[in-house]
Amino acid sequence: MISFASDYIAGAHPEVLKRLCETNLEALPGYGTDRYCESAKEKIRLACSMPEAQVEFIAGGTQTNAVVISSVLKDHEGVIAARTGHISVHEAGAVEYTGHKVLELDPADGKLNADRVRSFVADFYSDANRDHMVFPGMVYISHPTEYGTLYTKKELEELSAVCREYGMTLFLDGARLGYALMSRGTDVTLHDIAELTDVFYIGGTKVGALCGEAVVFTKNNMPPHFITSIKRRGAMLAKGRLLGIQFDALFTDGLYYEIGSHGIEMAEKLKTVFRDLGYTFFIDSPTNQQFLIMENGLMEKLSRSVIFEVWEKVDTGNTAVRFVTSWSTTDEDIEGLKNILKKI
Amino acid sequence: MISFASDYIAGAHPEVLKRLCETNLEALPGYGTDRYCESAKEKIRLACSMPEAQVEFIAGGTQTNAVVISSVLKDHEGVIAARTGHISVHEAGAVEYTGHKVLELDPADGKLNADRVRSFVADFYSDANRDHMVFPGMVYISHPTEYGTLYTKKELEELSAVCREYGMTLFLDGARLGYALMSRGTDVTLHDIAELTDVFYIGGTKVGALCGEAVVFTKNNMPPHFITSIKRRGAMLAKGRLLGIQFDALFTDGLYYEIGSHGIEMAEKLKTVFRDLGYTFFIDSPTNQQFLIMENGLMEKLSRSVIFEVWEKVDTGNTAVRFVTSWSTTDEDIEGLKNILKKI
Amino acid sequence: MISFASDYIAGAHPEVLKRLCETNLEALPGYGTDRYCESAKEKIRLACSMPEAQVEFIAGGTQTNAVVISSVLKDHEGVIAARTGHISVHEAGAVEYTGHKVLELDPADGKLNADRVRSFVADFYSDANRDHMVFPGMVYISHPTEYGTLYTKKELEELSAVCREYGMTLFLDGARLGYALMSRGTDVTLHDIAELTDVFYIGGTKVGALCGEAVVFTKNNMPPHFITSIKRRGAMLAKGRLLGIQFDALFTDGLYYEIGSHGIEMAEKLKTVFRDLGYTFFIDSPTNQQFLIMENGLMEKLSRSVIFEVWEKVDTGNTAVRFVTSWSTTDEDIEGLKNILKKI
Amino acid sequence: MISFASDYIAGAHPEVLKRLCETNLEALPGYGTDRYCESAKEKIRLACSMPEAQVEFIAGGTQTNAVVISSVLKDHEGVIAARTGHISVHEAGAVEYTGHKVLELDPADGKLNADRVRSFVADFYSDANRDHMVFPGMVYISHPTEYGTLYTKKELEELSAVCREYGMTLFLDGARLGYALMSRGTDVTLHDIAELTDVFYIGGTKVGALCGEAVVFTKNNMPPHFITSIKRRGAMLAKGRLLGIQFDALFTDGLYYEIGSHGIEMAEKLKTVFRDLGYTFFIDSPTNQQFLIMENGLMEKLSRSVIFEVWEKVDTGNTAVRFVTSWSTTDEDIEGLKNILKKI
Repeated sequence: MISFASDYIAGAHPEVLKRLCETNLEALPGYGTDRYCESAKEKIRLACSMPEAQVEFIAGGTQTNAVVISSVLKDHEGVIAARTGHISVHEAGAVEYTGHKVLELDPADGKLNADRVRSFVADFYSDANRDHMVFPGMVYISHPTEYGTLYTKKELEELSAVCREYGMTLFLDGARLGYALMSRGTDVTLHDIAELTDVFYIGGTKVGALCGEAVVFTKNNMPPHFITSIKRRGAMLAKGRLLGIQFDALFTDGLYYEIGSHGIEMAEKLKTVFRDLGYTFFIDSPTNQQFLIMENGLMEKLSRSVIFEVWEKVDTGNTAVRFVTSWSTTDEDIEGLKNILKKI
Repeated sequence: MISFASDYIAGAHPEVLKRLCETNLEALPGYGTDRYCESAKEKIRLACSMPEAQVEFIAGGTQTNAVVISSVLKDHEGVIAARTGHISVHEAGAVEYTGHKVLELDPADGKLNADRVRSFVADFYSDANRDHMVFPGMVYISHPTEYGTLYTKKELEELSAVCREYGMTLFLDGARLGYALMSRGTDVTLHDIAELTDVFYIGGTKVGALCGEAVVFTKNNMPPHFITSIKRRGAMLAKGRLLGIQFDALFTDGLYYEIGSHGIEMAEKLKTVFRDLGYTFFIDSPTNQQFLIMENGLMEKLSRSVIFEVWEKVDTGNTAVRFVTSWSTTDEDIEGLKNILKKI
Repeated sequence: MISFASDYIAGAHPEVLKRLCETNLEALPGYGTDRYCESAKEKIRLACSMPEAQVEFIAGGTQTNAVVISSVLKDHEGVIAARTGHISVHEAGAVEYTGHKVLELDPADGKLNADRVRSFVADFYSDANRDHMVFPGMVYISHPTEYGTLYTKKELEELSAVCREYGMTLFLDGARLGYALMSRGTDVTLHDIAELTDVFYIGGTKVGALCGEAVVFTKNNMPPHFITSIKRRGAMLAKGRLLGIQFDALFTDGLYYEIGSHGIEMAEKLKTVFRDLGYTFFIDSPTNQQFLIMENGLMEKLSRSVIFEVWEKVDTGNTAVRFVTSWSTTDEDIEGLKNILKKI
Repeated sequence: MISFASDYIAGAHPEVLKRLCETNLEALPGYGTDRYCESAKEKIRLACSMPEAQVEFIAGGTQTNAVVISSVLKDHEGVIAARTGHISVHEAGAVEYTGHKVLELDPADGKLNADRVRSFVADFYSDANRDHMVFPGMVYISHPTEYGTLYTKKELEELSAVCREYGMTLFLDGARLGYALMSRGTDVTLHDIAELTDVFYIGGTKVGALCGEAVVFTKNNMPPHFITSIKRRGAMLAKGRLLGIQFDALFTDGLYYEIGSHGIEMAEKLKTVFRDLGYTFFIDSPTNQQFLIMENGLMEKLSRSVIFEVWEKVDTGNTAVRFVTSWSTTDEDIEGLKNILKKI
């Protein structure tokens, strides 16, 4: 069966795997202190054009969100997020597990709006009972969002401004960052993100790695003893090399961008297929997640030969479904899907 | 430099890596629901001769300890461990981070003694103030221990008995289990462990995998919704295949035992080298961690050409050091060490 | 100044204080094991007509909510509450501090609707990704709500039904329960609440006590070792008598109801004053919290001679304000307010 | 029966209760913002001769310990305490519940020794693996200790010095502080404690109040938003007056010292009784807790007419028992005990 289930259906990008194989027998120190971790960190700093940035690697996305958020928030603070944000819905309460509240705001197209944030925070600070409430200490956004949408540079600047205005940390979840950066028409660069956020992560798992996310504290602002905070949350791998080598490969010769670019190219082809066949899009996504509205009978039929994800009910007869491309999607996958769709 | 720093200095055992490469492009579902995870679980059940056992994979050891302990303990309970146990000392308080106390008892040779445990628990239950104290709900042991020592079958039976007597869970940390099982002279089999404990884990990271530990609930006693508990603690990999494929390889054609066996063989050779040269052992370890007492000047000199770990101060002039072998240790490493030691 | 700031502006009801004085020199055992605690528990069981109910006393409301919710919820569960619920907004994230998410639903007049809850829970259980989400394990309601409104018996029955249907605990926060029970027109008795909920608490602090809430597990369903769970959260007073004696007094000769009744009588008089003067009510509340819409200039003027609480902005020119009555409100307070209002 | 069970067997000191009665009907704002709280804080600052000190009131001792420790510790830190310390043994793991480890050291006579602390901390900082360990961030002592013993000024100075040397907070649990301050022969004043510690608390519950402890941050070093941290842990009373009025009374006209003094006088008489009758003391305590070794048969007999606490088994035939005096102990109690002892 052709699978558009997610961007983590395959193993690692061949180039990444090759590096793991080549270095496999080298004796290296553990816990992220090896030279590949160092090299990868340096390459990421360069890619961000942020010489002062501090980088650490963590195995998975939910873990990264929980570690960063709980290490950065102060005791009395919570994190603002879109009600549809990954930390709000699909991490089984991992942020709350660390003791902090997710302050959920209504998004537009999966995105948080700076004015909405400002109004919420201004209301908070004008509330006489605020000492009995959770202080907004951080804003969490994902880019691309859970709906594949992207912030514009202007939108990020506005969010950055409201964060600075109220002393909040701006944290960007880049689980699919490669696809955001290479999306056609985006005006947001990796450097912009590093400039405008306080901390973000560069997703590896969904962009060609077996596992791993690179957390970037952009302005020499990593919490003291962050390594111990990682360890304490069980988020440190003994063989830190596994993450270092992969990110070193991803940031060598532009591989990370190449992967993003391929995923976007495949997504554009996918969009064309659906558009040409007259399908309605659930949301207009410029990245590697595409959302379509499908008539339930058709969806059922299609699911016998293509793997995709049921997203949410639209109405009694129709459902929103998700198709995801990645570095591993091939032209044959797209052609195959097209042929199946034509016959249904 | 020759390295005996740890059993996680190299990547994966070549056979494990080969399987990762062979399966790399297969499209698989995420989060541990793929066929390799299923296959690996079945092989582990067979290896344990426990058809009812339930298996889940988690990326690292500290995380596994924290997830298992905090998921199994009830609200009012803590976990008994040796004062030298990994959870007591070297996990940066990961168990306490989940809200539970580690009740530390004095060990003998790194091991918890059943009588010592019984006496502690009996004292607890005879204390009129026990409702104001942490209830002992679990006993945590490591096998091999942090000092390389092993429990005998009789010792495990006794610990198992005291746990059953007082309704405590017996949890065995098998981060280095492969080396325990293949240690010369041990009378403890994998089946014994599965029989005598309630939950244990089979270490992958230190026994040939890039990462990963296999948690085994031995008697159909996995906490309900354990998957969500894993997710909530950030301990679930999107590409669960990474763990499933590796454990599937480790439990195919006896690879896990072969790896353990090789590590033990190398450790025995290492012991002979040191013994022949008149060194004193800090502790008598039958597994892949060897502890020696070294005169400080000598230690300093040796550290210029061999990597090993400084363990603890013995007295003003001497230090306990640790040498670790693994599947990746070669005869050349041992010979090289021998030659260097002779010249010092 | 006349104060309608809250129902905790005065000390204890004189009858309660009298009992504290009378018993002051008696030597009693600590930590809630004294005879007054026993007597109070028995009286509460009788008042509820629930011979199997289990009662414990805790000093304050936020603490009670956090202790009960975190002791009852399972690891993978969160608690459903109205977005305006006390635990959602005004407890500084105390529930999240215990590691659990508050799943916020939109209320109507401060109340959770059973259909809304059912639809949320049904959606959850039909979601293919539910294992990555917080399970709804409990429904939290307050009665009266934060807006002074009350559930009808039918509404409670419906909530109880949906909870039973999905195996959720129904928890009722009765911080102001006395005023609910004596509200004119309510059809909900204390026995109904005990019948329909799994656990609830009878508020003392806001109904005549210096401090203290009585948690009632209605059906012999107190979590094992709940005492230790209380202690572990720092919520146990050494002089448990302080709570036992007060609740014993409150449940002697109908004092609790008398207090509620007086608060309601005063609230009705207050309503008449405002109604007669043509004020608009922000919400129609049948209990001791009354919400009015006030023109900002008027509000400012009034606040010079009367204490009340600013609730929320209604529009640019108007604000919702809260007036609260209690056992300590006097006819003179009402008359005084009336005279001031007339002159403004 | 005569009771020496504890110093919390009676209600409040009559003078304290009188003030509660006198102020009972005053309308006061909630949550510790009333004038009695302010007045009590000011009086405590004066009593400490620390004009910059910041004071907050919390209802109970375990809660105070948990709130202070968890608010002050940084993410990667734990708290050093005597293995016999209240937080180590008798708070049901309340500190661990907040996510932090108690690093237990062996005490001498219930006390932590500065050299022992220094050696532990020095070892920690010289350990190459310290990033994988819990950092010592605070030293917790109780004064009097759980065994009634007292630190000398010199001992406190030494502990203070080691804390300053290693950047650790020194926190003193003064649950029974009144008895320490008035102990015959102590050279430690309230001002000394305020000078030498970073934060401490003045116990109310065991020194004449119904409940309540006064936390003193001695050097303008209260964590920002401490009020919200208190609220978030459920440790804030709505009727904060209950604590403010009591501490205001305790620190008016030297009542707190008078209470301590009376408890000490009674303890000295108790000691004389036992000494004269040839009893052996389990430990030499200069405060209101007295520990005696009693032959088991005798203990059993005595327990029929006197209430005291069984402390711990000494050997097969003997048990250590605890007798506690307080402000409420009378000469008749002592005489009564003496007569009973003589007849046994």
